[in-house]
Amino acid sequence: MSEPTYEVAGVRTVTCIGAGVIGGGWVAHFLARGYRVLAWDPAPDAAEKLTRLVGNAWPALTELGLADGASQANLTVVPTLVEAVAEAGFVQESAPEDLELKRRLLAEIDAATPAGVVIASSTSGYSMSEMQVDTATPERLVVGHPFNPPYLIPLVEVVGGRLTEAWATSWAADFYRHVGKSVITMENELPGFIANRLQEALWREALHMVANGEATVEQIDTAITDGPGLRWPAQGPLLTFHLAGGEGGMAHMLDHFGPSLKSPWTRLEAPELTPKLRNAMVDGCDAEAAGRSIAELVAERDRAIIAVQRAVAQARRG
Amino acid sequence: MSEPTYEVAGVRTVTCIGAGVIGGGWVAHFLARGYRVLAWDPAPDAAEKLTRLVGNAWPALTELGLADGASQANLTVVPTLVEAVAEAGFVQESAPEDLELKRRLLAEIDAATPAGVVIASSTSGYSMSEMQVDTATPERLVVGHPFNPPYLIPLVEVVGGRLTEAWATSWAADFYRHVGKSVITMENELPGFIANRLQEALWREALHMVANGEATVEQIDTAITDGPGLRWPAQGPLLTFHLAGGEGGMAHMLDHFGPSLKSPWTRLEAPELTPKLRNAMVDGCDAEAAGRSIAELVAERDRAIIAVQRAVAQARRG
Repeated sequence: MSEPTYEVAGVRTVTCIGAGVIGGGWVAHFLARGYRVLAWDPAPDAAEKLTRLVGNAWPALTELGLADGASQANLTVVPTLVEAVAEAGFVQESAPEDLELKRRLLAEIDAATPAGVVIASSTSGYSMSEMQVDTATPERLVVGHPFNPPYLIPLVEVVGGRLTEAWATSWAADFYRHVGKSVITMENELPGFIANRLQEALWREALHMVANGEATVEQIDTAITDGPGLRWPAQGPLLTFHLAGGEGGMAHMLDHFGPSLKSPWTRLEAPELTPKLRNAMVDGCDAEAAGRSIAELVAERDRAIIAVQRAVAQARRG
Repeated sequence: MSEPTYEVAGVRTVTCIGAGVIGGGWVAHFLARGYRVLAWDPAPDAAEKLTRLVGNAWPALTELGLADGASQANLTVVPTLVEAVAEAGFVQESAPEDLELKRRLLAEIDAATPAGVVIASSTSGYSMSEMQVDTATPERLVVGHPFNPPYLIPLVEVVGGRLTEAWATSWAADFYRHVGKSVITMENELPGFIANRLQEALWREALHMVANGEATVEQIDTAITDGPGLRWPAQGPLLTFHLAGGEGGMAHMLDHFGPSLKSPWTRLEAPELTPKLRNAMVDGCDAEAAGRSIAELVAERDRAIIAVQRAVAQARRG
């Protein structure tokens, strides 16, 4: 099978395997986007858990706006994996993070799912190359890694394994976009993918600081919530530094502050700032700025910081 | 001199040294809070630069709400450092990051500033212990490290040097709070303080990924803006992981996912998860949660994510 059975817009039924927080979050997301969802989990209370998870998410999803025909009633929790995938237009697996379990489960899902239907795993810890080894048609298996809660955080990281074919990765990315997600398609498998690598670097530095009595939990969280964290929903860390360079942007930042990469400002050593890396950073920021001047980006940042602070203050009041 | 001359609420005049982006940002902040500001910078166009910086910031500050009597007209750019500090109730130094320059400048500021007036440096790169060596009264010098732009980002990190007395650090923290900032007072000097250490860990991991062709600039920024970055203005990275542990909170997170600290999910190695560190993380999250249950924190997070996304979308439209 070298091509997908369904067009992205032709999918009506999505199968979700796993009734944990991530599996339930996916169920809620697909229901809110108007899909019929078939779900399965070996736990005896799977239906109860999923119904509760979806019920808890529904007010937020209603507030965000439901698709035509979206309803909690479109969820059916079925007793077997085979029934769950029989009519699937897309399968999202969100089982516990256990490599042997994932291998076995994906092989079972693959065996029962109609040909040409893409199967995605929510894994955050494994590569698809490690997981797809026991499947009969590994070419349609991809990682589609979401963030908690999957019905609110747009990001999905898509990456195939060694045996995945390009059409499957590309179809999954298109489908996720079609259902409202923000998709990063990675060319190569990388432990932690992208977002969790960044998050993990910050987390480990934080653990070191607490372990050494250099900062408290509350100081670390305040340092982010009341500091750089206010900029990041609007402009990522690299575009943020593009602005820190003033009119010269990232080029000035690197040429001027490059030596600070040698400073002991974290336990993580920086790479050598080669001309190639310098240019990749500069060109990347220029591409991301997409013609917006530094002054325009600054104005956008300032509007966003004010709006984000107000939004958070209001959300805290409830 | 073992105590401050002014009560925090008694300060009427603030002196800002330096007419760069940070210095100008401080000028704008203090003007907006209703202070008279005296400023000095050796650049011949200092007045012009500061007037422009304040003018650019003023619409945002007006939108946020000005203090009674706040006016851009309350800024006076004076020709000498001595005139700038003569009537200061508080001095904020924001000169370029150059240790020799800072040492000399702080010695001059200290010599000319009335006794018992606290002098703060905006430095991000040096410790006050390194900078205060040539001053006659080092006990009143502290670091007050802001984030760009200082008139919008609330965080200020306050830390003294070896020769700083406790009253000065405590007075500076109180004064910054009085003018609307969110203050972290650090017990010990740490390169990069707290927020920049976290930011720097993320930045260095990002540079490694670009250097190795593992991710592009745009993918890295999207990974944050559309992923974990949406959570961080409301709940910092550690409280975020407290929620990731489900009802068991940070304790469950560490007991369950602790082994993942050995995973190669970043180039930064994690510390050993000793019982002491585990308990410090758990107790810190409990303290920060301040009685809010996981369910309440989840509801707060979800409200915040929705509100933040809307705020950012609106800010991007302009």
